[in-house]
Amino acid sequence: MKVHKIAVLAGDGIGKEVMPEGIRAVEAAARRFNIGIEWTTFEWPSCDYYLQHGKMMPDDWMDQLKGFDALFFGAVGWPETVPDHVSLWGSLLKFRRQFDQYINLRPVRLLPGVPCPLANKQPGDIDFYIVRENTEGEYSSVGGRMFEGTDREFVLQESIFTRTGVDRVLKFAFELAQQRPKKHLTSATKSNGISISMPYWDERVDAMGLSYPEVRHDKYHIDILAARFVLSPERFDVVVASNLFGDILSDLGPACAGTIGIAPSANLNPDRIFPSLFEPVHGSAPDIYGRNIANPIAMVWCGAMMLDFLGHKEAHDAIVAAVERCLVDGPRTPDMGGTATTTEVGKAIAAII
Amino acid sequence: MKVHKIAVLAGDGIGKEVMPEGIRAVEAAARRFNIGIEWTTFEWPSCDYYLQHGKMMPDDWMDQLKGFDALFFGAVGWPETVPDHVSLWGSLLKFRRQFDQYINLRPVRLLPGVPCPLANKQPGDIDFYIVRENTEGEYSSVGGRMFEGTDREFVLQESIFTRTGVDRVLKFAFELAQQRPKKHLTSATKSNGISISMPYWDERVDAMGLSYPEVRHDKYHIDILAARFVLSPERFDVVVASNLFGDILSDLGPACAGTIGIAPSANLNPDRIFPSLFEPVHGSAPDIYGRNIANPIAMVWCGAMMLDFLGHKEAHDAIVAAVERCLVDGPRTPDMGGTATTTEVGKAIAAII
Ligand SMILES: CC(C)[C@H](C(=O)O)[C@@H](O)C(=O)O
Ligand SMILES: CC(C)[C@H](C(=O)O)[C@@H](O)C(=O)O
Repeated sequence: MKVHKIAVLAGDGIGKEVMPEGIRAVEAAARRFNIGIEWTTFEWPSCDYYLQHGKMMPDDWMDQLKGFDALFFGAVGWPETVPDHVSLWGSLLKFRRQFDQYINLRPVRLLPGVPCPLANKQPGDIDFYIVRENTEGEYSSVGGRMFEGTDREFVLQESIFTRTGVDRVLKFAFELAQQRPKKHLTSATKSNGISISMPYWDERVDAMGLSYPEVRHDKYHIDILAARFVLSPERFDVVVASNLFGDILSDLGPACAGTIGIAPSANLNPDRIFPSLFEPVHGSAPDIYGRNIANPIAMVWCGAMMLDFLGHKEAHDAIVAAVERCLVDGPRTPDMGGTATTTEVGKAIAAII
Repeated sequence: MKVHKIAVLAGDGIGKEVMPEGIRAVEAAARRFNIGIEWTTFEWPSCDYYLQHGKMMPDDWMDQLKGFDALFFGAVGWPETVPDHVSLWGSLLKFRRQFDQYINLRPVRLLPGVPCPLANKQPGDIDFYIVRENTEGEYSSVGGRMFEGTDREFVLQESIFTRTGVDRVLKFAFELAQQRPKKHLTSATKSNGISISMPYWDERVDAMGLSYPEVRHDKYHIDILAARFVLSPERFDVVVASNLFGDILSDLGPACAGTIGIAPSANLNPDRIFPSLFEPVHGSAPDIYGRNIANPIAMVWCGAMMLDFLGHKEAHDAIVAAVERCLVDGPRTPDMGGTATTTEVGKAIAAII
């Protein structure tokens, strides 16, 4: 039996509360499907670590983590003591860049038992993936400020799109679309307003499309695409987007499906040269931390995605099925209208698995 | 009686169909409130003009238009013959920049008679303004491509935020918020990911806030803000955003309120040095052009915003009231579930006014 080595990075806030439940679910699935897992826990990255050491992680973080098969990540951020751009650029965004996790993958699904904020939608109506470029584009630290402190002050902020970076995310998205029954890919653009980077993106989409003749692909400007997520989410199958557009769409999509509090995300290095990272969308939620009421489902769902990526599709499906049953039958944390604790929900899901 | 000189720029597609109805409504209000209007019609900007002259407008467009009090604008774009970035950068985006229309203002309201895509929302629940920066930011034509055609190819796209540009839109937004009962301003940011321009934006928001102590202001990252538009639109009052974020939010907001087909927008030069421009959000809609079924309400509503800006608040209110009545009692164009023509709806609204 191959043993998967997983680094546990619980991080800050409710990351620390949901992590044990994510592990519990993965362990349950591992027992059922006879999968070997070896967990190693790290105190960093975290804002506590930052307060002690003046940095989010030790300098040799790459060496310490690069041998793992996956990083199981809770949440990072504690804005009261460390500004978000410090904690995030010092951890999550470093992982994405330096472990070349160039795909951010998020499922968007309307699930039974989850109240949907859109009118007249049924489970099954919303079921698509967002594939987000995760290393470059609008998220860059290149640029600067001139005439500081005067009326002429301005800042420049560079967006950077490389052929390598664009083509590999498009390839991943076309491959994913090709495996799905509808074989439909939608690309987010804004080439009518942003006149250099976005026409380039469109051009690469068309070029890549030539290699996937079975995949029907279309383009929407991000403004109208955001509107369509609300008006007709059933028309999407796989949506591919730049770093910023993908960021927006992958909060908006789960919001439309009512799952923003329970949505998972995978930061993938598909070439498997570096470990991939699996994290809930919800963040560290300082406002509810410490009461053991955080919903652990996102973390559990991340565990499912992690097992899938490690080659255990059957374990993924079993965890997701258990989540679906728990959403219908309970127990539920307060955000879903229940009174159960994080631990109770986690144990219930593990029991179903 | 002061006579307002209005340039009529119907443009392409359904712009040409809805324009007469916009004029009809403004004329009706002008008669009722004794307002003098002088209309001057232009064939440009339009894609037809482009096909004949190789440009969207004559070279002296600024001289020809700058003496007007307002530009009443239908829609530009006919992608079958002229690519969107050519038609738009050759017209609308030129107006915004060169006539320094630095505010893009869009009301977002859930109106009686309009089906809302969100569950459980009543008219009155959604009622806010989006104030978008309209001249700089992410919409720039600065940048370029390197290593073209090779594997090392990349493009750079500059975002440019000036103190002048940022401060004046923030000032407008704070002023607007101060006039409203709730006095609440929300700023869209992404300073946790975009690490130069967006922290600068945040910094200017805080600085401007000092001058408006009565206005409560908060900041949301654009990803979670987009999600909140769907989950809790009732919490917004005035939302201020950069060019790109404002573009996205001002399609998303009307989509959430069910009004994307009938939403107006105003491109304002608040200093009144140059004419301001009033245009429907819907665009030229080539797919329905030629059948006289386009909904004229956005154009009519633009007429109301134009009269408001020209100092006739009572005329604005009368037109909006007529639109609201027409939405409840009909007639309705097909997009609203009816069978009426553009002209029939336009005439009905004018009759109510
Ligand atoms: C057509 C396009 C360039 C424009 C924009 O992005 O500004 C439009 O979407 C708008 O909002 O007026
Ligand atoms: C926290 C932030 C930097 C991050 C992002 O924008 O990428 C988050 O929103 C996400 O989507 O993972």
